[in-house]
Amino acid sequence: MPSIDIHADVVDLTRQLVDIESVSRHERAIAGAVEQALSALEHLSVSRHGNTVVARTELGRDHRVVLAGHLDTVPVNGNLPSRLEDGILHGLGSCDMKGGDAVILRLAATLTEPVHDVTFVLYDAEEIDAALNGLNLLGQSGPDLLEADFAVLMEPSNGVVEAGCQGTLRVEVRTRGERAHAARSWRGVNAIHAAAEVLTRLNAYEPRRPVIDGLEYREGLNAVGISGGVAGNVVPDECVVTVNHRFAPDRSEAEAEAFVRELFDGFDVTVVDSAPGALPGLDRPAAAAFIEAVGGVVNPKFGWTDVARFSLLGIPAVNYGPGDPLFAHKQDEHVEVAQIVRCEEQLRAWLTGAVGAGGDAR
Amino acid sequence: MPSIDIHADVVDLTRQLVDIESVSRHERAIAGAVEQALSALEHLSVSRHGNTVVARTELGRDHRVVLAGHLDTVPVNGNLPSRLEDGILHGLGSCDMKGGDAVILRLAATLTEPVHDVTFVLYDAEEIDAALNGLNLLGQSGPDLLEADFAVLMEPSNGVVEAGCQGTLRVEVRTRGERAHAARSWRGVNAIHAAAEVLTRLNAYEPRRPVIDGLEYREGLNAVGISGGVAGNVVPDECVVTVNHRFAPDRSEAEAEAFVRELFDGFDVTVVDSAPGALPGLDRPAAAAFIEAVGGVVNPKFGWTDVARFSLLGIPAVNYGPGDPLFAHKQDEHVEVAQIVRCEEQLRAWLTGAVGAGGDAR
Repeated sequence: MPSIDIHADVVDLTRQLVDIESVSRHERAIAGAVEQALSALEHLSVSRHGNTVVARTELGRDHRVVLAGHLDTVPVNGNLPSRLEDGILHGLGSCDMKGGDAVILRLAATLTEPVHDVTFVLYDAEEIDAALNGLNLLGQSGPDLLEADFAVLMEPSNGVVEAGCQGTLRVEVRTRGERAHAARSWRGVNAIHAAAEVLTRLNAYEPRRPVIDGLEYREGLNAVGISGGVAGNVVPDECVVTVNHRFAPDRSEAEAEAFVRELFDGFDVTVVDSAPGALPGLDRPAAAAFIEAVGGVVNPKFGWTDVARFSLLGIPAVNYGPGDPLFAHKQDEHVEVAQIVRCEEQLRAWLTGAVGAGGDAR
Repeated sequence: MPSIDIHADVVDLTRQLVDIESVSRHERAIAGAVEQALSALEHLSVSRHGNTVVARTELGRDHRVVLAGHLDTVPVNGNLPSRLEDGILHGLGSCDMKGGDAVILRLAATLTEPVHDVTFVLYDAEEIDAALNGLNLLGQSGPDLLEADFAVLMEPSNGVVEAGCQGTLRVEVRTRGERAHAARSWRGVNAIHAAAEVLTRLNAYEPRRPVIDGLEYREGLNAVGISGGVAGNVVPDECVVTVNHRFAPDRSEAEAEAFVRELFDGFDVTVVDSAPGALPGLDRPAAAAFIEAVGGVVNPKFGWTDVARFSLLGIPAVNYGPGDPLFAHKQDEHVEVAQIVRCEEQLRAWLTGAVGAGGDAR
C-alpha cells in the first residue's frame, strides 16, 4: 500500500496525492494512505467508513466547522504521473481536487489548537452516481459525525469563494426500433437512426442564465454517453442516449426533470441520477464571516458540488479551494502551486483567529 | 458434449440443431456433434478444421458438387429453445440456417451412391467478421478440399434459387470533440452531439435499386452500432458510429467504399470489414442445370452470403435453402417444415439422377 508524508509542504503533499491513482471506485489505496497518516496524529480522533476518512478535533469549542474534500478523480487520460514546471503542477486530480485535499491534510496535521473544533472529511466516489458518494453515505450512516455550524468544501474555485451550486440530473433517453437483417433493412426499424432527433434537439438547446443573489448561473445539457447495436449485420432495436442536465439553483430537481421530459417529448426518458442545487445563501452569518476572512470576493458555482448535501443537512456551506475549475476533468488538468499555498495560509489564518491576515497576503 | 441423431427425419434433426445454442464464436459443441455423427458414416471421409467440418464422398465421379451451410447464429433474443406448432418450427437459427444444415446432414447420411461426388461443408463464424469465417479460412488453408464444379449454399431462400449476392462493407464513422466538465460544457466540444449530422445523413440516404440479369437488387445503409462517452459528468471527446452498407453486385468493394466516404465527407471514416458481392452468373451451364432441376424460379439475393467466396474461387454457386430470409435475425425467427422437407426431396432427386422430380412435387 502506498503511503504519504503528511509533514511534507503542501505542494509536495499534493504531488504525492496526485501520484496515487484514485479513479472513482478505486480509492482504497489513497484512503488507506490518508487514514494511516491521520491516525498517527494524537490530537485527532480518526474513523474510517468504506473509503471515507473522518478526523476530528475534540476541544470542546463553541463552534465546529467542516473542511471536506473528495479523493477520487475522473478516468485517467494520459495525464499521470504529475509534473511540476514553472510553478504549475500538472496531472489528473491536481486541480479537482487533490490540491484542496493537501490543504486539509496539512491543516489537520498542524492545527492542534484551532479556534473552532474542526472535522476533516476526505471521501470517495464524488465523480460518479450520487448513490455511491462517500459524503452522502456518511450523512446517512453517521450524520452526527458531520454536525457543524459551517462547512468549507475545497472544490477548485481559484481560491475564491464560490457560493451555491447548480443541480445535476442524468437521464437516459431511449429510442426503440425493430431488429432485422441489415441486408433487408427495410423490414426493420433502426433505433440508432431514430436517435438523430435526440441529438438534433440537444444541438438546438439554448441554456438559461438566471441571476440569483447577484450571481449569474449558466445551465447546460449534454449527451455524456450513447450506446446501441446488436451485431454488425443486424438493424438495432434500441439506442440509449445518456444526457446530463446542469440546472441553476432557482429550479428544483422536479422542475429540472419536467424541463428535460418536455424537451424530449415523444421519447422514453428515465431518470438515473439526480442531485439538487443549492441557493447561494449569502445572507447567512457563518457564510458572510468566512467570506470576509478570505478576501470578500464571491462567484457563482457552476459545477455541482457536495455543498448541496450540506445545505440539505441544514449546514451553511461554500466552495473554496485551489485550482481553476475550467481545467477540472480536462486532459491538461493543472493547478498553480501559489494558489494551494495561499489557500492553506488563508484557512490557517481563519482557524487560528488571525482573521483577514490570509486575505491580505496577495 | 451434446450429440445429434443423424438418422432422425429432417424436421426432428433441425430441432436438434436449433436446440444446441451456437452463437458465433461458440460453435464448439455443435461442431463436435456434427463431426461425431458424420464420422460414424463409412461412405464419407471426414475432417475437422477448427469448428468447421468437411465430409466427402470419394466415388471417382466426373463431377463434384458442394453443399454448404454455416452452423452459427446471431445472438440469442429470447428465442430458444425451439417450438414446433402447426407445421412451423420456431427458434433462433431455425431459418438461418439449421433447416438447411439438417438437409445437408440427411443427404450426407443417406446418399451412398450420388451421381456426382459431393463435398458436405458445415462451418462456423458466418455471422461475424469475414476474417473469422470458417469457409474463408478453409479456402485459404485447404482450397483442394473445396474444389468442385458447382456449389449450393443452403442459406434460407424459401426453397427457391437465389442468384448472386450483395456485397457488404462495414465502416466506423468517428467524430471528435474536446473533453470538459459537464457543468462547464461551453469549454469543451461534445463529440456525441457532432454525431447528429452522421445520423441525419443516414436518415436522408436513398437506396439504389439496380437491375442485373433481370433481377432487381436493393441496397442499404444502416448504423449497426454507436458508442461514445467518458463518464457521467464529462463532455465526451469521441463518438463512433458503425455503419453497414449492403451494395448490389454491379459495384466493386472499392466503388462501395468510395460511395460511403463521399456520403460521410468531412468525417473520419475507417473500413473495418468488407466482402464483395457476386454477379448472378445465370449464364453458366452448371447454374442453369441445377435451376431447372429444382423448379426454374430465380430471385435476386439481398443478403451477403458465401456464394461470393465460391465465385472468387471460380466455382459457380447459388443460394438455395428452406426458410423465409425475411425472418432471419429476427426475434420471431421460424421456418415452415414443409420447405425443409421439399428441399431435401429436390436435392435428393437431383443427386440421385431423378432430375426434375423434386421440382414437380409442389
